[in-house]
Amino acid sequence: MRTVIGVDLGGTNILSAVVNEQGEILGKDKRPTLAKLGATKVMLRIADSVHAASKESGLPWSSHLAVGIGSPGPLDQNTGIVIYTPNLNWHNVPIVDILQKKLHKPIYLENDANAATLGESWVGAGKDEKVVFCVTLGTGVGGGLVIDGKIYHGATGVSNHLGHVIVDPDGPKSSYGNKGILEQYASALGIVRLAKEIGLKPPTGQKTTPKTFKEMALDGNVKAKKVFETAGRMLGIGLTSAIHLLNPSVIIFSGGVSHAGNILFKPMYKEINARCFKTHLKGLKFRMAKLGDNMGAVGAARLAWQALNSSKK
Amino acid sequence: MRTVIGVDLGGTNILSAVVNEQGEILGKDKRPTLAKLGATKVMLRIADSVHAASKESGLPWSSHLAVGIGSPGPLDQNTGIVIYTPNLNWHNVPIVDILQKKLHKPIYLENDANAATLGESWVGAGKDEKVVFCVTLGTGVGGGLVIDGKIYHGATGVSNHLGHVIVDPDGPKSSYGNKGILEQYASALGIVRLAKEIGLKPPTGQKTTPKTFKEMALDGNVKAKKVFETAGRMLGIGLTSAIHLLNPSVIIFSGGVSHAGNILFKPMYKEINARCFKTHLKGLKFRMAKLGDNMGAVGAARLAWQALNSSKK
Repeated sequence: MRTVIGVDLGGTNILSAVVNEQGEILGKDKRPTLAKLGATKVMLRIADSVHAASKESGLPWSSHLAVGIGSPGPLDQNTGIVIYTPNLNWHNVPIVDILQKKLHKPIYLENDANAATLGESWVGAGKDEKVVFCVTLGTGVGGGLVIDGKIYHGATGVSNHLGHVIVDPDGPKSSYGNKGILEQYASALGIVRLAKEIGLKPPTGQKTTPKTFKEMALDGNVKAKKVFETAGRMLGIGLTSAIHLLNPSVIIFSGGVSHAGNILFKPMYKEINARCFKTHLKGLKFRMAKLGDNMGAVGAARLAWQALNSSKK
Repeated sequence: MRTVIGVDLGGTNILSAVVNEQGEILGKDKRPTLAKLGATKVMLRIADSVHAASKESGLPWSSHLAVGIGSPGPLDQNTGIVIYTPNLNWHNVPIVDILQKKLHKPIYLENDANAATLGESWVGAGKDEKVVFCVTLGTGVGGGLVIDGKIYHGATGVSNHLGHVIVDPDGPKSSYGNKGILEQYASALGIVRLAKEIGLKPPTGQKTTPKTFKEMALDGNVKAKKVFETAGRMLGIGLTSAIHLLNPSVIIFSGGVSHAGNILFKPMYKEINARCFKTHLKGLKFRMAKLGDNMGAVGAARLAWQALNSSKK
């Protein structure tokens, strides 16, 4: 049996999975990242998690040909260095070198959003689709693009920043100077901002989160409904621009805010249907991510398989 | 000597060029399309133009291995049919079949914007660049994307519609329902619309064209300057969205409106510099197209070379 191990390194959890060439998970480990302990300790925890997943698979260590890692970025694939990540508070961490020394396997690095998109395009909601565009509605808004089974990196590895597409040129100013970008509306931070803007507050004792506002909206709260209508409308505007540029086969949603469901997606579809060329909507599918928690690890495993197969040639 | 012949079929002119594998033009013919004569006659004119370019090259007919054609679209590359083109008033014209019978060479078809981008990426302003994004500011606003030397088609061949990126969600309504799209500002039609909106009229006896308004702006006309400021600002907003999604190496401008120069590009750069992530601007080049009139024909020739080389494998 030939396998690889995919690792999804997140600010909260490390998830490792032993994955065969068909994309099946044969063993898995999930543990808290404990980022506060610092990079050296986190690196030990990654190695421990990889070994635990291997053990759970019941396969010999030698059956794992390589390890793929999806990490928050920005990062440099060529040097194997994570340049900076606010979630982990890392600066220039040579993750590939360090893990190679601990695990004695080839290590392949990719940013987490790209790895997740690769996972969904391989065995998830984007299986057998030519152009897969993943939209993550989390703390921010992120995107990933896989074309003919390969991750699209752009010229310098910073493509697919869907959250920074302009949806209202005179909208609120972001921290770096752009105004009215999608992230200011359709992310968790955006929804909290919209709520504040119209004076929507959570019931006493409840947290100021999209989840609280979602429940208020479902209970009929007019202001809460308005917040998701605006977020959905802006998501539709941003995606209309992306659809005309990228012409994807499928758009796949993931992330906490995507669980808002119809109160978010109904206004989004309304906007897209009113604005998009019919030729661009023909055949275009909208789906929820299928791999759940495993997206990133499965995608990191796919990355390792692709690297192994291309180096064989 | 091995060559191919590239043909740029336009609403106004047919341009044919004999091109070697280094991208050098060895013979050329340009003649009016005379689209009003109908598809059958235009097809004869294309064949005549190809033969004339061959003759001008002084090379034997047998040295031309294939013919590439850049045509207005939409078109279907697989069946070789031009589905519809308003400029030529064609509906479902099987251009590849017809020309194969006339010329007895393999014929390869591509839409004109993609062919032009391929030409610039091969031997023009995008030479040796990884991700080449061409922006045509003509009657409308068009885009073309070449990644690692290959045309990006999207899922169904309708990618790179830069003109339909939303720059003001509540802007004027387009004919098909979208509102505030880039084409309504930064195209020839957009500039005429903007002029009308603020009551700018050409001097008596002069035409209502971007060229007239450009001269008025250069002469200090405040309203004319304002028109180009708005067009440039909107161009900057649309390109900011495209830059964050596509992360190009180079953006190449062509088309009549692009000759407006600084009165258009200064406000564009101002907007881009104020709005783009520094990581996305790092290394990004902005250039004017280099191949001029020959863009489309040289790109169509490159298409033929790529098809010949891939079929050899």
